[in-house]
Amino acid sequence: MSSEGSMMDNQVVRAFFTYATIVAVKMMLMSPFTTYFRLTRKVFANLEDTKLVSSTHDKKLVGLDPEVERVRRCHLNDLENVVPFVLVGLLYTLTGPELSSALLHFRLFAGSRIFHTIAYVGALPQPCRALSFMLGLVVTFSMAYRVLSTVLLL
Amino acid sequence: MSSEGSMMDNQVVRAFFTYATIVAVKMMLMSPFTTYFRLTRKVFANLEDTKLVSSTHDKKLVGLDPEVERVRRCHLNDLENVVPFVLVGLLYTLTGPELSSALLHFRLFAGSRIFHTIAYVGALPQPCRALSFMLGLVVTFSMAYRVLSTVLLL
Amino acid sequence: MSSEGSMMDNQVVRAFFTYATIVAVKMMLMSPFTTYFRLTRKVFANLEDTKLVSSTHDKKLVGLDPEVERVRRCHLNDLENVVPFVLVGLLYTLTGPELSSALLHFRLFAGSRIFHTIAYVGALPQPCRALSFMLGLVVTFSMAYRVLSTVLLL
Repeated sequence: MSSEGSMMDNQVVRAFFTYATIVAVKMMLMSPFTTYFRLTRKVFANLEDTKLVSSTHDKKLVGLDPEVERVRRCHLNDLENVVPFVLVGLLYTLTGPELSSALLHFRLFAGSRIFHTIAYVGALPQPCRALSFMLGLVVTFSMAYRVLSTVLLL
Repeated sequence: MSSEGSMMDNQVVRAFFTYATIVAVKMMLMSPFTTYFRLTRKVFANLEDTKLVSSTHDKKLVGLDPEVERVRRCHLNDLENVVPFVLVGLLYTLTGPELSSALLHFRLFAGSRIFHTIAYVGALPQPCRALSFMLGLVVTFSMAYRVLSTVLLL
Repeated sequence: MSSEGSMMDNQVVRAFFTYATIVAVKMMLMSPFTTYFRLTRKVFANLEDTKLVSSTHDKKLVGLDPEVERVRRCHLNDLENVVPFVLVGLLYTLTGPELSSALLHFRLFAGSRIFHTIAYVGALPQPCRALSFMLGLVVTFSMAYRVLSTVLLL
């Protein structure tokens, strides 16, 4: 860490940084996406937000909309899965796995979450979403298994 | 970091990796746990999910169930507490604390969260859940205090 | 990492640890803040929690309160933004940015989130909250851009 250069020479570290940033950015894009739906559908969670599309505070614009709630559930599901992936993935990366094995984990996870978002927001028929969700979970559990089997100290 | 071997020789690092992975896995298990409740109680959040237990899209299966919502609140509470623990715990580990002190923090936290889940899902009488929640919070604040008192640079 | 001392000599690392801990603690304080509102307004999410303010289990105390829901939305928004900041910020810190540039990112983010909380809980007129939210998002995206442009390995 005193010589960042040498750390950045590690290809597994670079691959992890790349994919962790990609899924984190994907997750964060759900926020402006929710805002876009709220503004176009004119459905808000707070009274003061109605001022963004109306000249007066309009109580009728505060409520729930099926599309907005769908995007919010998708965002929450990202939080529940992407955040553990990045946390466990960092520990996994530091245990020094093979590059090919690490890339397989990272690519499967990133792919599964991008497909999950498409399946959720687009309301694709099940079990599209269930399978992509499970794939992401299995990848993270596989990394967690490697971490525990490498460093276990209770 | 260029020599993962030497880092994995650090016992505090190994202990942190172990407990961080355990609480992260425990948190992620709430997802299949929620799915199990949804499938057995036949209560879903999305219309397309009803196909998993019904031959047609059945609007009556979309709704809220007290048990499912309880598990989801428990999951969200995990997110709100386990994620800060792992983030602050990583910084804490890197400040080089005593092994005994670090193990005390990690064990108390892991124990408090496992008990918290039992108390929440099992609806144990209060203040069982409140106390286990507060213990986890105090552990994380204690680690945050050590980090700030070691590295403060505003 | 085998020599924590040298790592803690890195000023960018120390600055990141400081600000990451501050925003993580700010986020965690939303939990006791929610509890305070629940206890004073006597509105709970679980039947067993009503015992904390009532001698019997009182179903009328289980429900939703606008103020409590506002604090909870603010907490969830923190989770959605502070957690990616800490994750991406850690990767950003390890790419070895200039101290002045790093401090600018960290200070802007911490300031934007503290102001966001005041704007949300205090229901300040929009676009106060929207702007502070967007500032935090832009800071994290800027760090993500630097990470990707430094380490990209797909």
